[in-house]
Amino acid sequence: MRNTFGNIFTITTFGESHGKGLGVIIDGCPAGIKIDEDFIRVELQRRKPGQSKITTQRKEEDNFEILSGVFEGQSTGTPIAMVIYNTDQKSKDYSHIAEKFRPSHADYTYHEKFGVRDYRGGGRSSARETAARVAAGAVAKLFLAHYGVEINAYVSQAGAVRLEKPYQELDFSLTESNIVRCPDQETADKMIQVIDQTRKEKDTIGGVVSCVAKGVPVGLGEPVFDRLHAVLGHAMLSINAVKGFEFGSGFEGVTMKGSEHNDAFYKEGDRVRTRTNHSGGIQGGISNGEDIYFKVAFKPVATIMQDQESVDTKGEAATVSGKGRHDPCVVPRAVPIVEAMCALVLADYLLLNRSSKV
Amino acid sequence: MRNTFGNIFTITTFGESHGKGLGVIIDGCPAGIKIDEDFIRVELQRRKPGQSKITTQRKEEDNFEILSGVFEGQSTGTPIAMVIYNTDQKSKDYSHIAEKFRPSHADYTYHEKFGVRDYRGGGRSSARETAARVAAGAVAKLFLAHYGVEINAYVSQAGAVRLEKPYQELDFSLTESNIVRCPDQETADKMIQVIDQTRKEKDTIGGVVSCVAKGVPVGLGEPVFDRLHAVLGHAMLSINAVKGFEFGSGFEGVTMKGSEHNDAFYKEGDRVRTRTNHSGGIQGGISNGEDIYFKVAFKPVATIMQDQESVDTKGEAATVSGKGRHDPCVVPRAVPIVEAMCALVLADYLLLNRSSKV
Amino acid sequence: MRNTFGNIFTITTFGESHGKGLGVIIDGCPAGIKIDEDFIRVELQRRKPGQSKITTQRKEEDNFEILSGVFEGQSTGTPIAMVIYNTDQKSKDYSHIAEKFRPSHADYTYHEKFGVRDYRGGGRSSARETAARVAAGAVAKLFLAHYGVEINAYVSQAGAVRLEKPYQELDFSLTESNIVRCPDQETADKMIQVIDQTRKEKDTIGGVVSCVAKGVPVGLGEPVFDRLHAVLGHAMLSINAVKGFEFGSGFEGVTMKGSEHNDAFYKEGDRVRTRTNHSGGIQGGISNGEDIYFKVAFKPVATIMQDQESVDTKGEAATVSGKGRHDPCVVPRAVPIVEAMCALVLADYLLLNRSSKV
Amino acid sequence: MRNTFGNIFTITTFGESHGKGLGVIIDGCPAGIKIDEDFIRVELQRRKPGQSKITTQRKEEDNFEILSGVFEGQSTGTPIAMVIYNTDQKSKDYSHIAEKFRPSHADYTYHEKFGVRDYRGGGRSSARETAARVAAGAVAKLFLAHYGVEINAYVSQAGAVRLEKPYQELDFSLTESNIVRCPDQETADKMIQVIDQTRKEKDTIGGVVSCVAKGVPVGLGEPVFDRLHAVLGHAMLSINAVKGFEFGSGFEGVTMKGSEHNDAFYKEGDRVRTRTNHSGGIQGGISNGEDIYFKVAFKPVATIMQDQESVDTKGEAATVSGKGRHDPCVVPRAVPIVEAMCALVLADYLLLNRSSKV
Repeated sequence: MRNTFGNIFTITTFGESHGKGLGVIIDGCPAGIKIDEDFIRVELQRRKPGQSKITTQRKEEDNFEILSGVFEGQSTGTPIAMVIYNTDQKSKDYSHIAEKFRPSHADYTYHEKFGVRDYRGGGRSSARETAARVAAGAVAKLFLAHYGVEINAYVSQAGAVRLEKPYQELDFSLTESNIVRCPDQETADKMIQVIDQTRKEKDTIGGVVSCVAKGVPVGLGEPVFDRLHAVLGHAMLSINAVKGFEFGSGFEGVTMKGSEHNDAFYKEGDRVRTRTNHSGGIQGGISNGEDIYFKVAFKPVATIMQDQESVDTKGEAATVSGKGRHDPCVVPRAVPIVEAMCALVLADYLLLNRSSKV
Repeated sequence: MRNTFGNIFTITTFGESHGKGLGVIIDGCPAGIKIDEDFIRVELQRRKPGQSKITTQRKEEDNFEILSGVFEGQSTGTPIAMVIYNTDQKSKDYSHIAEKFRPSHADYTYHEKFGVRDYRGGGRSSARETAARVAAGAVAKLFLAHYGVEINAYVSQAGAVRLEKPYQELDFSLTESNIVRCPDQETADKMIQVIDQTRKEKDTIGGVVSCVAKGVPVGLGEPVFDRLHAVLGHAMLSINAVKGFEFGSGFEGVTMKGSEHNDAFYKEGDRVRTRTNHSGGIQGGISNGEDIYFKVAFKPVATIMQDQESVDTKGEAATVSGKGRHDPCVVPRAVPIVEAMCALVLADYLLLNRSSKV
Repeated sequence: MRNTFGNIFTITTFGESHGKGLGVIIDGCPAGIKIDEDFIRVELQRRKPGQSKITTQRKEEDNFEILSGVFEGQSTGTPIAMVIYNTDQKSKDYSHIAEKFRPSHADYTYHEKFGVRDYRGGGRSSARETAARVAAGAVAKLFLAHYGVEINAYVSQAGAVRLEKPYQELDFSLTESNIVRCPDQETADKMIQVIDQTRKEKDTIGGVVSCVAKGVPVGLGEPVFDRLHAVLGHAMLSINAVKGFEFGSGFEGVTMKGSEHNDAFYKEGDRVRTRTNHSGGIQGGISNGEDIYFKVAFKPVATIMQDQESVDTKGEAATVSGKGRHDPCVVPRAVPIVEAMCALVLADYLLLNRSSKV
Repeated sequence: MRNTFGNIFTITTFGESHGKGLGVIIDGCPAGIKIDEDFIRVELQRRKPGQSKITTQRKEEDNFEILSGVFEGQSTGTPIAMVIYNTDQKSKDYSHIAEKFRPSHADYTYHEKFGVRDYRGGGRSSARETAARVAAGAVAKLFLAHYGVEINAYVSQAGAVRLEKPYQELDFSLTESNIVRCPDQETADKMIQVIDQTRKEKDTIGGVVSCVAKGVPVGLGEPVFDRLHAVLGHAMLSINAVKGFEFGSGFEGVTMKGSEHNDAFYKEGDRVRTRTNHSGGIQGGISNGEDIYFKVAFKPVATIMQDQESVDTKGEAATVSGKGRHDPCVVPRAVPIVEAMCALVLADYLLLNRSSKV
């Protein structure tokens, strides 16, 4: 079940970058959800290439079609299959990668693991696969809306430019107001500048996406292996180019004392709350009703417009040259992917939690 | 399957901190492995409480018994059940936690999720559960030894004291030579000092465990969701008190340029190697034959010997007082747990990889 | 994972009878298998409606398209998605079933379970879903051919007409030589007659499909719950209209004595063989190298061309009238479905068995 | 996950016939169920050897211990581990089976599959493993009692002696009133006679267990592969010595016409009912609220007190002689096993069904 994620609300994705199409089957989506195709379309547009000067200039339309599982606008409880056809499969010249391993790509490892490899545009290892996740995540968001759960991701670092404000001071309605998807305009400007500069240098740079989920009910997450943050981490680390995940106080929490780090409980009206939230909304692996927040680190994109040392499939030394149109920094387009994976995990654990008590 | 981890080489753990016993079933361990009980015992001793002045002074013997799956010293391919009986179940006074929620513990979330809660020593949420993982991980190590895979974890940070040397400069045979499990004696001394000082202040502190796996064959890891590092991250984040995971260049890779970060390929004898290893031994989610390395961040232990603000199960304000004997810093005892979870993931993916080709 | 079957070689199907399309994702098919599209097409044609006078006269073309997972004619180890588009989705008049529950169909139970229901042609509960299984089963057969495994199913009973010959006396090359798919022409003629007669009476009748797998290696099947025959039974019982499954001596074995029923071992050349095969090729849940054989019972098709008592979605008494074109007996078209499910199980367990020993 | 069964309410069993112990972990049992240990004990006693003259005279006490998951008499939502220690592990003389393959046992197939084999008493392939299932099934029954579900199995055939009455005419309170567990005393007497006679002939005989589940809510079962009857079939076929499974009209339904077989719907008060129940309470794979009923065929026990032709582990001809104390007919002790597996399936699907609607 290697291309499947989830326990009850599950997704199985398929497809290669330059094959006939890619897509996803959502199995386990409860019946009775209004499937708003426009909303799915908007989510896909947030991810698609060619949106701005700081993303790849490649054009892909990412039109999707729902093949099953929706009847008269509602989910029926049966598998929802969505396909995104690759309109541009024209036989490009792939000779520069067919027989050479691009550094820090999946070329070499796929070649060794499977013996054969669809080298066109990276095949299955292409980040194009995440379009299917975004489509599925949109459905998960529609399900979560029934419970008042809201998910907001944003770019909190691009290269060395870091947004220093804590998430509580941000206005998430501004995230989509600039091309880098940072809800603080001043920082956004700096990020855009550094990305644009890097692009001009024919190089790439990394970044960090932060994510906040509000309105998550108490009780999601399972002891022991499927702690909510462990599954969120799994989900985030499965996104292309991700190198790290932390939630709540994260790596910085390491240097804190227990007496500072512990989140004191108090009562606010009927609700048990915590005065601080170093726990990131998750205690003992289970949501405690506070905001869930986490960060995801993305490495610099491996495709650069420069010559690089490598070897070919015969094991001879080779030079890989940069070609095509690629993102100088992946994080602006990663924002909807992080949200989608977060939504899928929360939808799944919300359903799992229905079995906690007799 | 919430208490199960793995696809083929799977573990299912059970047991509460102060119940009759805890343990694990390993299902899917191949037949024909020599099960060295002494080795399992040694691994458990590395994790057990009461080892030194910087761990909890609580004594637990962690004697285990193998109930099944081993015949004449060999694994038979059937489930290996191992039980660690709790010798000290005496009915202590738990009134201080039975009806109060300890801050940053799992008390509140378990209470809300399940309605009932075994509050004795944290019940199922106790880190005592990891003893079962260490026992199972020892078996996974015995399996991996057939393939020449070696796993070494060590403490690389305690509070603000950080080991600055890269792992390549360390002699892992020194890890067990000091009580903090840092293979650099000078840094170890500073770590021990800060932990001991924190203990005297009735406080706790966090830390980082680093881990290196050598000899991992090329090809382990599955596209798309079960990238090797995503599953390693899941495994590590499922360990009590973990707040973050990064592999290879991790969060620091964010600020690098693609041209610096990419790992150039070259040929060394028959083997395709990379000149640098920012990939942490994993490319496109699949091992590339280089060393796999990653870091795991642990928060300060939540149990402190101080009074803390909280609420009780009736929702009234309450004060939780520190009691009992607890670790001032969890990382020295976490080293074998990190190794165990790493071994379990590698064993599982080594078996999964047997199905990659016809 | 309700629409998924298998552990390693898995299939996930989707689609409704009259939606845009239906299909399957095969995940876990090893890389390096030559994917013969013509063979898949032939298998689908064996299942498709409208083949003969004793099947439904409905015409469906069942043209499939492979969207992913195959490159230059070979499986790549990534998910193989196949879609069969429904060419005939025209909005027929479904008023006769939209608000009435057809007796012994899934109308009522889907309605109650999900609240909504795609009533067009039975929606997800339609046997049209099995086309996706046949396509996937064809790929499993191509994989099994590497191991010399051959699967032959045939009709052994239609209504009261029963093929009395044991399978050892049959020539499976004759199965496709008549429209009922019984490899004994004399019995086939009687079967055709009884089915045709039943059709003329606007009624339907049941039947039995027998299946024999030759060349299955020793060792397939897992203790305890996933005994090979238990999984074969699960697979067969998941086919529409199936009411029973038996393997080897089956229900008749009940009246035998142990001394008659036991299969004595002997040596034939290098191979351990059994003198009889009441075990049906499976002992202790694991294949023993002898022929695997089993029988699958199908009920009479529920759609009949007669008026029937029922209730409507409002709970009022209603009459359901027969309409459309349906099979008088399902077994001739069920033969390739039984083979497909058998192939999928054997492919999966062959891969699982690669992990039995160190 | 070969020794695990279920999706949400799951069991994982372990243990060999003559190892230290065997047992089960129930993972996913909801919190808040009163765990009645006396009830579990009674269920185990119905299965245990040595109950009567028509079962094996071997004595095994089957005392169980709950190690985890229960606190103050209630399930806590964490794994419930139960162990049954083997009190009689004394090193008997196993030379008669250590190096010979008993006909129609699992000796040969385990030997080939795993290379090693715990031959003592059949090891993992022994029916003793089912004690763990009965213990787990008792917990499932306690859960189902919250929903008014009641499960009754009984012996409906022993050798050629068959109970002809339909289940509707039986008084299940009589099942435990005789040693063969047939609720019709006259038939029971004949069954006892035939079993006793067979035992005297040092032979064995097969039988059939029928099972009826009443009070099952509408909606249990999942399209497509996990139809309720497919999973029940899987569960039953995973019991030692089972050769066949049928539900509702079963194999006899084959000869019926659709017009006879279809179950007409009508309204009874508020409830939609069916006039007949050839569907066996399951339509389209989903429970319809009528009684679920099915039959399970058991072969004659393979251990007979006679000499048999075989081969040894070196492939030489050998004679296997009957030894020890074994059941002449397995069905009286199989009744609680069938009930247990039925309860486990229903508990699991009841929980799964909580996710059907938004």
